Amino acid sequence: LSEWRMDVVTGRWVVIAAERGGRPFDFKIEREGTRAGTCPLCPGHERETPPEITAYRAPGTAPDTPGWRVRVVPNKFPAVRGCGCAVASARGVHRAMPGIGAHEMVIESPKHVRGLEDLGPEEVAAVLLMWQERCLALRRLAWVEYIQVFKNVGRAAGASLEHTHSQIMALPFVPREVAAELAATGAPEGCRLCAVVRQELAEESRVVVAGRHVVVFAPFASRFPFELWVVPLVHEGDFARADRAVREEMALALHGALGRLARVLGRPPYNLILHTGPVNRAAADFHWHLEVLPRITVPAGFEFGTGYYVNPLPPEAAARYLVQNENPR
Amino acid sequence: LSEWRMDVVTGRWVVIAAERGGRPFDFKIEREGTRAGTCPLCPGHERETPPEITAYRAPGTAPDTPGWRVRVVPNKFPAVRGCGCAVASARGVHRAMPGIGAHEMVIESPKHVRGLEDLGPEEVAAVLLMWQERCLALRRLAWVEYIQVFKNVGRAAGASLEHTHSQIMALPFVPREVAAELAATGAPEGCRLCAVVRQELAEESRVVVAGRHVVVFAPFASRFPFELWVVPLVHEGDFARADRAVREEMALALHGALGRLARVLGRPPYNLILHTGPVNRAAADFHWHLEVLPRITVPAGFEFGTGYYVNPLPPEAAARYLVQNENPR
Repeated sequence: LSEWRMDVVTGRWVVIAAERGGRPFDFKIEREGTRAGTCPLCPGHERETPPEITAYRAPGTAPDTPGWRVRVVPNKFPAVRGCGCAVASARGVHRAMPGIGAHEMVIESPKHVRGLEDLGPEEVAAVLLMWQERCLALRRLAWVEYIQVFKNVGRAAGASLEHTHSQIMALPFVPREVAAELAATGAPEGCRLCAVVRQELAEESRVVVAGRHVVVFAPFASRFPFELWVVPLVHEGDFARADRAVREEMALALHGALGRLARVLGRPPYNLILHTGPVNRAAADFHWHLEVLPRITVPAGFEFGTGYYVNPLPPEAAARYLVQNENPR
Repeated sequence: LSEWRMDVVTGRWVVIAAERGGRPFDFKIEREGTRAGTCPLCPGHERETPPEITAYRAPGTAPDTPGWRVRVVPNKFPAVRGCGCAVASARGVHRAMPGIGAHEMVIESPKHVRGLEDLGPEEVAAVLLMWQERCLALRRLAWVEYIQVFKNVGRAAGASLEHTHSQIMALPFVPREVAAELAATGAPEGCRLCAVVRQELAEESRVVVAGRHVVVFAPFASRFPFELWVVPLVHEGDFARADRAVREEMALALHGALGRLARVLGRPPYNLILHTGPVNRAAADFHWHLEVLPRITVPAGFEFGTGYYVNPLPPEAAARYLVQNENPR
């Protein structure tokens, strides 16, 4: 069974996902290439995944059969699972607790395509709606403190399956990256992300898409070349409460930004992460947003040693290439 | 010129190394493969690097000529450089400061080999001695708050050159990973890394090498499969003050551990990082150590979103494979 372990020197939590590791290299299995026709996420292969949790599907079609547009299943190789009390116990100086959590996979389309940029904006909006529904469902569980939605595209970004999908993990604590943002976006003296959004819109040099409800920009301190943040203009901590207008414009902006990345960089590997407010905090305490992290550089000794980054491309240059749809190579 | 930029939402600092990026993909140039004979780090090619800062070399040989055993040069593509006052200035809500710092390359051997595991233990000891000397020299600069020594081996670990080398960056602040460890290892109630070392030696299940002065173990909350920490038994914050006995045993233990990794995993890519105490803190405030991070898994959306890790291999299993020199595949 999996186990959460805390490094007492750094305070960092790690899931030791031993279920995957009776044979230690089991996890390589997930990295198999898949082609349309043999892909376990394609329609007609529903029995190759665990039974579906929910789906948007055509009227009259049965669960675990074709006819779905978005389909959610438990992860076949869950890093965490089960319910329980999130209390760390001592093992000498070490701290550990059972590997509780939920780990779901959102199959974003019946089409065997690589990423959200290959779908239509309305299909991306349906994926966002499904993320919202799963966030609402998962946070009813008593032990859930945070829900991390993320997406890996391309092997260099950690993707194990080619067919476009995202993952949702419900966690028994607030992770440290979110805790850091919480301090800055819910501070009484005002949300720093609101201030950043105002400044980006005024300066324009890092903006890629500016809409009525949403802005896409290359952040001032981008960790990666072509890093993009997709941020709602309104200060709202809870992604699940974003209304239809915001969700649909977010889908359009995200789709547009990913399409530009694909054209300018030649379909790079990337990670997409959602940062939303912790479950048990007031909605005003956070400012939810998406982060797109292209993986064309490799975090290495400096990054792991310091927690900081070297980025060889100014975000102003990245924004210019993306706005002009210009390939820099 | 380079610039340090702070993300005001997370507190994270990033070097925007624009010197490398006038042409934005300049940094790809560093990733060229090199072969013995055309390698700019091999003897006879000394003019292809910037002029040497220092070297261990045969009596009577001139700088920037063959005859060296370990050679230190400025990084040809420095992420940071120059001196100055490390004061962040406001740019609206953003914070930035000039890209001050030092960025050196330690060419660890005249032999065109891949890593420290390909050298002899006494050659590894000479590299550690050179790291100590550079730490002592760099911290005389008034603005230096921290010195990060690291090594990238293999492309998947971010290495740009094949010939075995390490990098040293002098920084104008204490990075967040070190700050987190500082709180735990210099606490008045006792150093947690000392407590971990005692427990690992008592339990044995995660220990790979146990010596008189040094222990190598797979940490309880390993981020990566086969992660190893190399830790001196004595509570000492300042790597540069480690004496000859510790340094030579450290070299032997590191060489042995890297050799086991190479045999068991088939020469994996890896990062090696040194965590030593900040320049302006008392030596008792830290417990210096090395961390070896094999890069056979890919940090992805979960890791970047949360700052936490999923590790599919229990460290107890990793230690067993390494102790038995057994290839798990």
